[in-house]
Amino acid sequence: MWKIKGIAASAGIAIGKIMHMQEAVHDFCRLVDASQTPAEKERFYAAQQAAEKELEILQERTAANMGEQQAEVFAAHKLMVTDPSFVEVVLNHIDNQASAEAAVEYAANEIAAMFAGLDSEYMQERAADIKDIGKRLVRILQGGTAEVNYTGILAAQDLLPSDTAALDLDCVSGFITALGGKTSHSSILARAAGIPAVVGVGSALEKLNNGDTVIVDGHVGEVLVNPEEDILADYRLRIKKEQERAALLASVGHLPSETLDGHHIELACNIGTPGDMEKVIAAGAEGVGLFRTEFLFLDKTSVPTEEEQVESYKAVLAAMPDKKIVIRTLDAGGDKQLPFIGGLPEANPALGLRAIRLCMVYQDVFKTQLRALLRASVAGNLHIMFPMIATVDELLSAKALLQEAAKELTQEGVPYKSDVAVGIMVEVPAAAAIADILAEEVDFFSIGTNDLVQYTMAADRMNEHVAYLSDYFQPPVVRLIGNVAKAAQKAGKWVGMCGEMAGDPLATPLLVGLGLTELSMNGRAVPIVKHRIRQLDVKQTQKWADEILSLRTASDIKKRLEEIALEFEI
Amino acid sequence: MWKIKGIAASAGIAIGKIMHMQEAVHDFCRLVDASQTPAEKERFYAAQQAAEKELEILQERTAANMGEQQAEVFAAHKLMVTDPSFVEVVLNHIDNQASAEAAVEYAANEIAAMFAGLDSEYMQERAADIKDIGKRLVRILQGGTAEVNYTGILAAQDLLPSDTAALDLDCVSGFITALGGKTSHSSILARAAGIPAVVGVGSALEKLNNGDTVIVDGHVGEVLVNPEEDILADYRLRIKKEQERAALLASVGHLPSETLDGHHIELACNIGTPGDMEKVIAAGAEGVGLFRTEFLFLDKTSVPTEEEQVESYKAVLAAMPDKKIVIRTLDAGGDKQLPFIGGLPEANPALGLRAIRLCMVYQDVFKTQLRALLRASVAGNLHIMFPMIATVDELLSAKALLQEAAKELTQEGVPYKSDVAVGIMVEVPAAAAIADILAEEVDFFSIGTNDLVQYTMAADRMNEHVAYLSDYFQPPVVRLIGNVAKAAQKAGKWVGMCGEMAGDPLATPLLVGLGLTELSMNGRAVPIVKHRIRQLDVKQTQKWADEILSLRTASDIKKRLEEIALEFEI
Repeated sequence: MWKIKGIAASAGIAIGKIMHMQEAVHDFCRLVDASQTPAEKERFYAAQQAAEKELEILQERTAANMGEQQAEVFAAHKLMVTDPSFVEVVLNHIDNQASAEAAVEYAANEIAAMFAGLDSEYMQERAADIKDIGKRLVRILQGGTAEVNYTGILAAQDLLPSDTAALDLDCVSGFITALGGKTSHSSILARAAGIPAVVGVGSALEKLNNGDTVIVDGHVGEVLVNPEEDILADYRLRIKKEQERAALLASVGHLPSETLDGHHIELACNIGTPGDMEKVIAAGAEGVGLFRTEFLFLDKTSVPTEEEQVESYKAVLAAMPDKKIVIRTLDAGGDKQLPFIGGLPEANPALGLRAIRLCMVYQDVFKTQLRALLRASVAGNLHIMFPMIATVDELLSAKALLQEAAKELTQEGVPYKSDVAVGIMVEVPAAAAIADILAEEVDFFSIGTNDLVQYTMAADRMNEHVAYLSDYFQPPVVRLIGNVAKAAQKAGKWVGMCGEMAGDPLATPLLVGLGLTELSMNGRAVPIVKHRIRQLDVKQTQKWADEILSLRTASDIKKRLEEIALEFEI
Repeated sequence: MWKIKGIAASAGIAIGKIMHMQEAVHDFCRLVDASQTPAEKERFYAAQQAAEKELEILQERTAANMGEQQAEVFAAHKLMVTDPSFVEVVLNHIDNQASAEAAVEYAANEIAAMFAGLDSEYMQERAADIKDIGKRLVRILQGGTAEVNYTGILAAQDLLPSDTAALDLDCVSGFITALGGKTSHSSILARAAGIPAVVGVGSALEKLNNGDTVIVDGHVGEVLVNPEEDILADYRLRIKKEQERAALLASVGHLPSETLDGHHIELACNIGTPGDMEKVIAAGAEGVGLFRTEFLFLDKTSVPTEEEQVESYKAVLAAMPDKKIVIRTLDAGGDKQLPFIGGLPEANPALGLRAIRLCMVYQDVFKTQLRALLRASVAGNLHIMFPMIATVDELLSAKALLQEAAKELTQEGVPYKSDVAVGIMVEVPAAAAIADILAEEVDFFSIGTNDLVQYTMAADRMNEHVAYLSDYFQPPVVRLIGNVAKAAQKAGKWVGMCGEMAGDPLATPLLVGLGLTELSMNGRAVPIVKHRIRQLDVKQTQKWADEILSLRTASDIKKRLEEIALEFEI
């Protein structure tokens, strides 16, 4: 056995025999007689039409198999095939006596080189797109078909989007490519299709022979070539466990998120745009625990209008009209500067004029958002959440402005719900320390662990030199979370969490034990956390939490939680 | 009555009649016959000698009246009078047929202009020095004496160091100057002499007539000219109260810092260099609660040697050999970059690699400091304090390095005290939240309110936009302080404070009530806080503290403390 190291592009393990992808393109005549020029142009136009048709089919097939989003790349390819500047370059080459194949290849390479020269991963990927189109056109010009029957583990220089889309995914169990990175199209498609993939293995690809048995470990980015029987057995067991796990998680999708002793823990999703609602519903989540509204403000040269905002908020609310939707007011400043607010540079932006602080300075911007939120409230079950609250005064000022917005709408005769719930992010240590005082003034808390960790530990979470401190299992962080939960419970308010910690199944028993009743996370984490919750007994989690609150270090806490995790199925 | 606004240069109130300072220098002949050149040079040398003598007397007198430090300026002037480059410029002018007076004036102005052109306050002041020397020499050349009998409120364009030193301070009760700033020599000397001063009033000075009655309010930087009788009466009462207060504070100087019910609250000073020890003793403090060692490292191009450090630490320890001296290990990084450690720019330096974090990266620098501290320990009662501790792991690592340093010294046969107390600054919210855990591993805590406020409130204390959050009376900060004190008491360790709050008499009842037993501050605050402590009953302060812990806002807390303060004499 020997190993190939690559990039872990799509998680999972596959075992199978290597099959190298055949290059569909053969040699062709590059130079033609000048008299052939019109004929070559006709051949190009015909190939262009055929390519459009192929791409249409690919788009439909991919949408059906892997989702609309994955299929979008083919829509983009269709546009590129008929792009006037691409066509112009092709025709020029033909005018200079190139064959249609050569003209297409030259044009694709030239444009790809131009894209690749731009220093952005996005543009690098566009270079791959145009090469893909070039190959497709050349293959069509040569009379080739799109379908090749590959089985087992497919080894290729690079898997272009059309290659992967043309595959029969029931027959191909893994990918290995010489080129590509984590964000290349092939990797994205592999992940979407759930096919384990190791990319970027370089020249090692050539050492693989058709028929070699390999294990593709997409978790760590490793290919084991011709492994011994005991190793194969190990990996077969792992595959079996993964399949069981996947089946289990798929099965909890629409089961209630309830502990063994019948306590409901609400599982919600964090979203960034209304477009994310599709995933929220697919994940089996019960609503939105954090809708970040920054997408409306960042990368804009002017403040979004009230109408624009109403539309976005309504879109989210209407997608799950009877579910709780928590919309966070603008959290700009710090590392998210607003282009239309000329901010002065700050020595420590994370400790500066951001979130609610910024909003209370730009009250016109803030009030417009509050008006838009109230107007949208009629479309569903809106919860408004203020970020970065550190004092009662800040909270009362924000609430007063909300009252003012409501009063204006009343006077204007614009409908809104008068009983919209109002809560705060608890992400500043100050707020955690006075949670009892703040609890009197809110309907709910949502703990933002990312910032709470950053400020509690006085460690910038983006600064690698102090990364050892940035850990939500740090005892002071866990204690502050406990303090917030206790204060909320005493005041009869619910407390949730929308930080990274909420989606970590290792933390679930602790968070439930501390008294949190809502966890908001990425869609992918929902079934995992739900399955964990369904195995918990709240009384037991409370005992664990008490014990953990007395532990001395983050690693002690992690170790204890890992022991606890062993008691569960996943 | 009318008012003049200026800069509050020296606190206090003075009432008296205006007396304008007479310019000692009269017109003189500027051009002399070439044959006079040798004689003019002789006159200059004679004046130079006379000036040296005058300055020597001024230096002695100022040292006796206002302290060694204030007298240093005259030592500097003596050097400048004989400075070869100054003398060369003077002699050149005389060679060009200038009179000695003119030559001195030209030379002084030229050099002053050169200094003034440099963009630094320090250099601006050097310009004033050289002008002062010029004036002195011209006056001497004209046969003038240094003594003028000024009484009342002295009004002058600028008070040069020699002017103020020549004054009979028993007769002059206030200064008003057209020029100058808070850090000009005249302001510094006025503060040292305790004479109220308003500087920088500009051309308004000319509107004052000799004999005008004025009130100089050095607290706010205001001059009230020919005030009405009721206003005068008001200010006379204020002067009386200030005098009573000063007398009272002077009287507590060497009384014990003890509450009415016999609890000792240790009052110590924060210092920056060994030279500050004079003030610590003068303030009636009981030791040093914070010796910042950064002066040894900042503005240096190389790491200070172990020997250099031993010398500095010993100087401080030896100044009060039987008193507690808390030396903080290097607190660099953040806004205090070390020139010999090329730091990368950080997005949020306050949340970055600083203090103990930096020391644990540059362990060679840190261990040298720890060795130097241990070696110095034989000279007194050393307490070592680590800054910015956020986790038990950090504390244990720092202590392990200290052990390693001790082991080395033992092996080398170098003497040190083996029972040096080790404590930490509590300035990160994390440390406050796990004070019970940390208390097991330390001999003491010292709460650093400046950073604790900054991180707890997530508000950079240097950022004016979030200044409204930077307040040590914020309820979460007060609660964290209480939490630290409780944990320390439970573990039988002492807990002090070395932040700004420790020197605020408004906070004293609260801090004593929360259980702090040491407060470290600037020398000036010691008698004020001591007087407050001597009026406290610990049982009563505990009741106040409990009450304050439940208040909702910083202004509620301040208001309550102001009510409490009314119960005391000062």
